[in-house]
Amino acid sequence: MPAKIDNSAAYKARQDARAGILTGPTANLAPGHVQANLAILPEELAHDFLRFCQRNPKPCPLVAVSETGDPSLPELGQDIDIRTDIPRYRVWRNGELVAEPTDIRDLWNEKLVAFLIGCSFSFEEAMLADGLPVRHIEQGCNVPMYRTNIPTVATGPFSGPLVVSMRPLKAADAIRAVQVTSRFPSVHGAPVHLGDPSLIGITDISKPDYGDAVEIREGEIPVFWACGVTPQSVIANVRPEFCITHAPGHMLVTDLLNSSIAVI
Amino acid sequence: MPAKIDNSAAYKARQDARAGILTGPTANLAPGHVQANLAILPEELAHDFLRFCQRNPKPCPLVAVSETGDPSLPELGQDIDIRTDIPRYRVWRNGELVAEPTDIRDLWNEKLVAFLIGCSFSFEEAMLADGLPVRHIEQGCNVPMYRTNIPTVATGPFSGPLVVSMRPLKAADAIRAVQVTSRFPSVHGAPVHLGDPSLIGITDISKPDYGDAVEIREGEIPVFWACGVTPQSVIANVRPEFCITHAPGHMLVTDLLNSSIAVI
Repeated sequence: MPAKIDNSAAYKARQDARAGILTGPTANLAPGHVQANLAILPEELAHDFLRFCQRNPKPCPLVAVSETGDPSLPELGQDIDIRTDIPRYRVWRNGELVAEPTDIRDLWNEKLVAFLIGCSFSFEEAMLADGLPVRHIEQGCNVPMYRTNIPTVATGPFSGPLVVSMRPLKAADAIRAVQVTSRFPSVHGAPVHLGDPSLIGITDISKPDYGDAVEIREGEIPVFWACGVTPQSVIANVRPEFCITHAPGHMLVTDLLNSSIAVI
Repeated sequence: MPAKIDNSAAYKARQDARAGILTGPTANLAPGHVQANLAILPEELAHDFLRFCQRNPKPCPLVAVSETGDPSLPELGQDIDIRTDIPRYRVWRNGELVAEPTDIRDLWNEKLVAFLIGCSFSFEEAMLADGLPVRHIEQGCNVPMYRTNIPTVATGPFSGPLVVSMRPLKAADAIRAVQVTSRFPSVHGAPVHLGDPSLIGITDISKPDYGDAVEIREGEIPVFWACGVTPQSVIANVRPEFCITHAPGHMLVTDLLNSSIAVI
């Protein structure tokens, strides 16, 4: 009989969010478990967005899509209610941020679809377990993110540039990081670029478009991964009448194990 | 019943070498088959050299070691005689090249051990099959190789710097090349460095220590793999009383398939 997976920490994180006890970021909660970004869209946009994700799997790796109007996500864990189980949400109307509630039961309706998108926490955990440095974790700040000149594959109303996150590494560590993160295609996978930032349209590496700048030390090169901010910025471009996302850093903690989503 | 592997082209290459019909390089002979570098050492050096290879698997990936005095290598193919089946050999005495025969039956003795070491042909074939450019093949010249400041793990009398081969690639192709060549640890595997050559002690990328310089185009970075010239240069440092290697480019064509040595 296989060992029973202990999901109690993941379940507790969701229950605490639901009860309003947990309202802060989810980093380091339930180590070993996959966390996911959220985008909730009205049905009329959902089909195009699903196709957008399918066509742009590196920035938009879908770990689950809900049934229309159904807030449960049984493939991601026990008793999930996406309306309550994330610590903090962002509500957008016509592209403007209008609220940051901790519960969206009053906003949910029968025409909404929830998209859960893999996040870099999983591959960063694998990097750390392999002894690779993750600078923004060392420095206790947010990962630096940049808009690039790499287009996504436009689909319906959704289009826009790829956004990347950056982690500085020595060359040998960058090579190892390619190997380690290639195992995790459902959470962005291998890097999309390394070295000269200008080749992907980044003019000043010290000025990220999102998150915080981190130190690049002598002998290190910047290594760039496709980033889950891409779908958020693509949705923002569309300025949908109504949509909901997670608040940055406030993710859905799932029952999936990072090790179980590794392809090899 | 599994499909029978067609080894006829590999077998013919060896038989042609044995008959003196094939005396030139083996590149492009028997596509899909593993080719191997040769080093033949006297028994008194062989144990240390075997340990050297075990401790330096990236430059010295052993695909086979003969029994002492036995010129057959049954694990590498049908009816191999290492004294005749390579198109051209190099004979060294006290570190000096003294002959380049096509047959070493008269030099073989009961105290010699043959080492067969994986070669980059296998991973280059995988790169080409994946649509990645291999510049020295495009340019019809030898791969550029460089002595680095990276030491090997010294063992007995064997020591010296790592020698690397270089292939220029765009960053995204370099990332893909890490993935593709990681599948082939027995033929040098993933790169050891990429980007700034000075970080591994290479002062002038346009002046390789072995082979030919190749063009590095705009937007490309040099990508460096551990090279099978390392064991040759390490042996040369020892200036053994007697040893035999293959002549550069004149390899043993084995019955092993490149696909069969891929780890995933």
